[in-house]
Amino acid sequence: MRATVVLAHPYAESFNHALFHRAVQTLQALDAEVFAHDLYAEKFDPVLTVAELGKEPSTDPLVRQYTAELMASDVLVFVHPNWWGRPPALLAGYIDRIIRPPHAYEVSEGKLGGKLGVVFNTGNTPAERENDYFGDPLEALWKRCLFGFCGIEDTRRVLFRVVSDSTPAIRRTWLDEAESTLREVVTHFPKRP
Amino acid sequence: MRATVVLAHPYAESFNHALFHRAVQTLQALDAEVFAHDLYAEKFDPVLTVAELGKEPSTDPLVRQYTAELMASDVLVFVHPNWWGRPPALLAGYIDRIIRPPHAYEVSEGKLGGKLGVVFNTGNTPAERENDYFGDPLEALWKRCLFGFCGIEDTRRVLFRVVSDSTPAIRRTWLDEAESTLREVVTHFPKRP
Repeated sequence: MRATVVLAHPYAESFNHALFHRAVQTLQALDAEVFAHDLYAEKFDPVLTVAELGKEPSTDPLVRQYTAELMASDVLVFVHPNWWGRPPALLAGYIDRIIRPPHAYEVSEGKLGGKLGVVFNTGNTPAERENDYFGDPLEALWKRCLFGFCGIEDTRRVLFRVVSDSTPAIRRTWLDEAESTLREVVTHFPKRP
Repeated sequence: MRATVVLAHPYAESFNHALFHRAVQTLQALDAEVFAHDLYAEKFDPVLTVAELGKEPSTDPLVRQYTAELMASDVLVFVHPNWWGRPPALLAGYIDRIIRPPHAYEVSEGKLGGKLGVVFNTGNTPAERENDYFGDPLEALWKRCLFGFCGIEDTRRVLFRVVSDSTPAIRRTWLDEAESTLREVVTHFPKRP
């Protein structure tokens, strides 16, 4: 099993970093080959170029590496905070530049089917306001706009909140929850024989 | 009247560029002082830094300029394509880096009240699928997550589609629609005496 794990958060001591490291450790403990990328640490350039509007491969070595690893991965894990109802620009740009035709999709045809998609989010909005007022846009962005569009049917998303109010003890239970979630979905994957 | 107009699209001949230019011309014809920014052309860096996680002003001269102009503007216009249910990374990063405390909001307090927010989007998804399957996440992102959060009550959003199927004649009518929309909302703004 191979897995790509992607993190986008600027602060190295953030809870997002802790989630990222726990996800990587968990997958390695499950004998996965893990391609782990902290987009801030790796100074990824998130700006899709005009040449990348079409189907030609990118000339950016990091984009080519991330793309090859994504396509080789059975499991895709994304870790990021909720900024304005979507990922930070750095992860938005990872999607813009890596999830491209012809490898990830063609017109009306998702080409990432058979992979498992997992998202760990952090937020500072209480559940009621997030769901009733904002409408939990991250759920739409990941499950339908991205995973669904690309043919990924097996997905799991967990939103940890409210991070700004959380104690170290609560955060430890959240890390355990991330680990058990990942163990459970990976262990039951793939569903097809 | 002052207006900030922001564009994010990599292709200089795109319909987004035509919308951007029409918006700028329309506002200038209405005697507005216009701060017009093509984020691709200006090589804006969309990656929020760790120092920008708090309330300290950015040290990036372009961020400081955009911020001062945004705060001085009565009208904010954003022009961008629908990429994965949210703006391109470059515009996501404009939001991450410019719409920050303490000037744009504080905890539970939007501070952009009294401004007019206008969004022109382009898309390649038919209306039924966009609304019923994807749930039109751009509507949530702009109207509630951003404008609503920052206290902007007067808003207008127009989504032009399906761009990939459109003829030059249809695009001309869309540019006229953008102009008439902008004229109407600006003419009736501010609503308060």
